Amino acid sequence: MTPSPSPTVADVSEQELVAAILRVLAGSSHAVVGPGDDAAVLAAPGERVVVTTDTLVHGPDFRLAWSSPLDLGFKAAAVNLADVAAMGARPTALFVALALPETTTVAFVEELAAGLRAACDDLAPECAVEGGDLTVSDTLTIAVTAVGVLPGRPVLRSGARPGDVVAVAGELGPAARGLAVLFDRFRDESGHPVTVDPALLSAREREELRAQLRPRPPIGAGVRAAEAGATAMMDVSDGLLLDATRLADASGVTVDLDGVEDDAALRGGEDHALLATFGPGRDLPTGFRPIGTVRPRGDVPVTIAGEAASGAGGWDPQRDWDSARG
Amino acid sequence: MTPSPSPTVADVSEQELVAAILRVLAGSSHAVVGPGDDAAVLAAPGERVVVTTDTLVHGPDFRLAWSSPLDLGFKAAAVNLADVAAMGARPTALFVALALPETTTVAFVEELAAGLRAACDDLAPECAVEGGDLTVSDTLTIAVTAVGVLPGRPVLRSGARPGDVVAVAGELGPAARGLAVLFDRFRDESGHPVTVDPALLSAREREELRAQLRPRPPIGAGVRAAEAGATAMMDVSDGLLLDATRLADASGVTVDLDGVEDDAALRGGEDHALLATFGPGRDLPTGFRPIGTVRPRGDVPVTIAGEAASGAGGWDPQRDWDSARG
Repeated sequence: MTPSPSPTVADVSEQELVAAILRVLAGSSHAVVGPGDDAAVLAAPGERVVVTTDTLVHGPDFRLAWSSPLDLGFKAAAVNLADVAAMGARPTALFVALALPETTTVAFVEELAAGLRAACDDLAPECAVEGGDLTVSDTLTIAVTAVGVLPGRPVLRSGARPGDVVAVAGELGPAARGLAVLFDRFRDESGHPVTVDPALLSAREREELRAQLRPRPPIGAGVRAAEAGATAMMDVSDGLLLDATRLADASGVTVDLDGVEDDAALRGGEDHALLATFGPGRDLPTGFRPIGTVRPRGDVPVTIAGEAASGAGGWDPQRDWDSARG
Repeated sequence: MTPSPSPTVADVSEQELVAAILRVLAGSSHAVVGPGDDAAVLAAPGERVVVTTDTLVHGPDFRLAWSSPLDLGFKAAAVNLADVAAMGARPTALFVALALPETTTVAFVEELAAGLRAACDDLAPECAVEGGDLTVSDTLTIAVTAVGVLPGRPVLRSGARPGDVVAVAGELGPAARGLAVLFDRFRDESGHPVTVDPALLSAREREELRAQLRPRPPIGAGVRAAEAGATAMMDVSDGLLLDATRLADASGVTVDLDGVEDDAALRGGEDHALLATFGPGRDLPTGFRPIGTVRPRGDVPVTIAGEAASGAGGWDPQRDWDSARG
């Protein structure tokens, strides 16, 4: 038998694995009571918190041939931070349920924890991992719950009004183009993912890959939008067309987009940009750019320069994206 | 081809599946903003919340031959409610990340949601499912995050002092005996679980099975303990001996148990009883009974009637329970 390069989670006790993770997270907690008791205790200034949960599953959501454990931790945190930001809130804590195959190495888990920490440090410095849970599973699964605090009122999807400016903060498209690079160029003949050789990529493609594997949503823009009086907001997780449809339906309006015509920008969602609406004539907060106008509800929820946007209504990420593309 | 009795999650859109779940949960939300936006908004009176997460994975944590989807939902909620209660808090919201095999029927998911709701209604009426996430996975996984509010100060594991009374609320043992019934009598010759025939069970065994599959932790006793001045508290999730060891180590004391000698009570944890300590001479709150005394730290963390408790230190649920028993 060849000696294993790193012990696996089956070689160590739960207590030892928790201790290894806590070493990576050391010094990051901002909680009243951090990890280690039955539950964490978090401050909730203003007597309200926002809470959201989002999961990455090996297979549908990521491939280990493409994503490093650092990427995975970073992305699992980033997608949840974006949902908190999209309410106009500031993220304060992550709770991470890891379901790990017994063959997972301790080094992999430590890197994953480092990725979670890096996303907080980079994107939401007041946020840290404040608790979690470890279980054994045949399928690597990272379920993250994020908590945030609201400096003002929450910004819902349902508040857009005719005449509002439609604006976006963050990127639209690079993450989808990065996924296309992976699917088109880093699969074997049977369609299985193979390791990426960066030497085969242009600088721009490397950036797109990074946008897919380690997205950087504009977390601080969420609170700025709320403070600037945003009437509605959500994060773009399933593509601008679909998410604008959701916002339009929730608000009972039609969203008319202008100047966004690139297919990756319209249909690729994993950049986790923030889509928001602002009353007419208001200055947009830093980071937001105008991409359209809110109209009274017409025949369709989303138009592009006044024309019905094809495919805006029927898109479903679970069926149409994952199963079609891998 | 035989027609399927119920559509599976692969047959419906994510939106349709979410709608089916929301129909089951309808009317239960107490949140400022409930399910449907990027995140829920919860009230946090006193400007603090407690948050905890715990996951059930098919295989290590449950078997579909033994657990109904109603059982699974109920248990996934109950174990998290117990962690909130163990801080002296009142549960207010659950967030549920479901990772579902494509063959899972919609009816199964609806029953699972009904189980989550039933646990809240029965054990913590101010609590409801306020958000969640759906993903496809080869392994059925239910990751629940629970949030609660603190009427007073949080009760940690670390506050037990010599002279305190050790007390417990809830049951010790039935869940472990129920698991033994399943392992001993409802597996085939290869060790695989087979469906339980209730006709083969005594009334007591049916109760024990129910305690294992649908535990009823004494959630309200958590706040009562905090109000009565509990010095330390935790839930018994991995057996009284191991969890008393954790409390003793966190507090720097020795816990001397008295009158708990049954092996299932000492080593079986899944009843999720609440273990707490109270200052000497204080009246115990309703639901708690004395089971020992806190001593100055001695050679071992836990003694039974003054004698070192064998096996109290080295127990590990991940290695010693799951893998030994299946």
